[in-house]
Amino acid sequence: MTEKIDSWFGTTVDRLNDPKNQRVWSIIVSLFGDMAQDPKDRISGSALTRVIGPMGIKPEAIRVALHRLRKDGWIDSSRIGRTSVHFLTPSGRAQSAAVTPRIYSHAPESITSWHVLMAQETSGQSTLEDVMLTQNYISIGRHSALGAGPVPRNCEDLLTFVVDKMSVPNWLRNQIYAPELIETCTDLEQALQGLSQVPAGLSAAQIATLRTLIVHRWRRVVLRHPDLPPEFHPDNWPGTSCRTHVFGLLDQLPRPNLNTLGDPPDH
Amino acid sequence: MTEKIDSWFGTTVDRLNDPKNQRVWSIIVSLFGDMAQDPKDRISGSALTRVIGPMGIKPEAIRVALHRLRKDGWIDSSRIGRTSVHFLTPSGRAQSAAVTPRIYSHAPESITSWHVLMAQETSGQSTLEDVMLTQNYISIGRHSALGAGPVPRNCEDLLTFVVDKMSVPNWLRNQIYAPELIETCTDLEQALQGLSQVPAGLSAAQIATLRTLIVHRWRRVVLRHPDLPPEFHPDNWPGTSCRTHVFGLLDQLPRPNLNTLGDPPDH
Repeated sequence: MTEKIDSWFGTTVDRLNDPKNQRVWSIIVSLFGDMAQDPKDRISGSALTRVIGPMGIKPEAIRVALHRLRKDGWIDSSRIGRTSVHFLTPSGRAQSAAVTPRIYSHAPESITSWHVLMAQETSGQSTLEDVMLTQNYISIGRHSALGAGPVPRNCEDLLTFVVDKMSVPNWLRNQIYAPELIETCTDLEQALQGLSQVPAGLSAAQIATLRTLIVHRWRRVVLRHPDLPPEFHPDNWPGTSCRTHVFGLLDQLPRPNLNTLGDPPDH
Repeated sequence: MTEKIDSWFGTTVDRLNDPKNQRVWSIIVSLFGDMAQDPKDRISGSALTRVIGPMGIKPEAIRVALHRLRKDGWIDSSRIGRTSVHFLTPSGRAQSAAVTPRIYSHAPESITSWHVLMAQETSGQSTLEDVMLTQNYISIGRHSALGAGPVPRNCEDLLTFVVDKMSVPNWLRNQIYAPELIETCTDLEQALQGLSQVPAGLSAAQIATLRTLIVHRWRRVVLRHPDLPPEFHPDNWPGTSCRTHVFGLLDQLPRPNLNTLGDPPDH
């Protein structure tokens, strides 16, 4: 039984592992964001190795990544007895929390109102850039942006429109959903196809490995474009179907208790 | 009595004459557009001299201008007995008719709905330019335009918005109402001030001279900007007041019958 599960686990990890996307520090950020956002959450060094080791990542690479993450203020480490434990800093927690709603939304909120901001070509860029920093805007050329909801304050320098109806041309669809993004999303969807059924009996660490892989790859899709209604999607956009696969799988892999990551498989 | 009227007429012509704007062919276009748009309308060479001569334009300059207008297909000429007569060609009539509603509107129709067209920066300019040719659009930078009414057909290449509300910044006001336009309009308004009362007893030709001068200068104001609601006007825009003065005067100078242009003053 264990052998059969371990074999399924190994095949699945290979399938979900993205050799183009093996930045270890980034995988660790995905892991902590997924499972250790509470201020009290700690992940031991050995648990970390157990969870991301199966992806083919060596302990030395993990040490280097942790060093970098500490230097960048994402992660902090301490010792409990002879064990080193790692945890998100307040800043790392805040950054994780900021993107959590977008990563874990089973169905993105549908946007019902839009506005357009237009800057003067010869100047006025700075106001547009200031405003765009504070929200998710879609750039339309260098002087205009499309945003959800009402027109923000402090836009006196800009020509602003509240949009009643809009029609989206193919060039804008292809600009928002660039070929690289479509490829990243298509690759993930193909990796997830055929993984609809998760066998019973996986260990907590195995579940954590799979969650981390899925979340890590999904982050790269979902955070690289704004959540837009279908009228913005190019014909070949696999995002909606990919999201269904992601949560079809994640929902079968409930977040393990961090204290059980050292436990043997449940069988 | 005649002397007093002739003196008022002379002063008024001097006042309305714009030395910066003495293109004779253009004055003739204004005259025909104002008084001879009917296919049967004919203006004799002597009537023409009588109407625009008082502006200080010599017969030789009129001959040169008529030659140019015939070459451009605006005006055609023929002879009735020993008299040469001039008239608008079908094309000249069509071009005059196209701008007549804008020139003679006492109060521009208020625009209640707007749309925005946006072309892709790297291409797609041509669709925007094609559409802009067919209507009065306000250019906003090189890739966008604001137009009245609904989105036209054949805009699949463009990002289009039906506008619900809009807020107009100063830079756009100053772009539409450029300093030269404001100066042209201010000059005309100042020339018209103090001309509120037209004396009785002007000849048909004198009325025609005054109408031509007013229409000619007003054309240069009204056709150089789209008719826009007050939210688009810069603070120093004299257009609304200028329009009031223009029609306050024109309405006292009813279009003369072309056959009476040779008649002596009505006193």
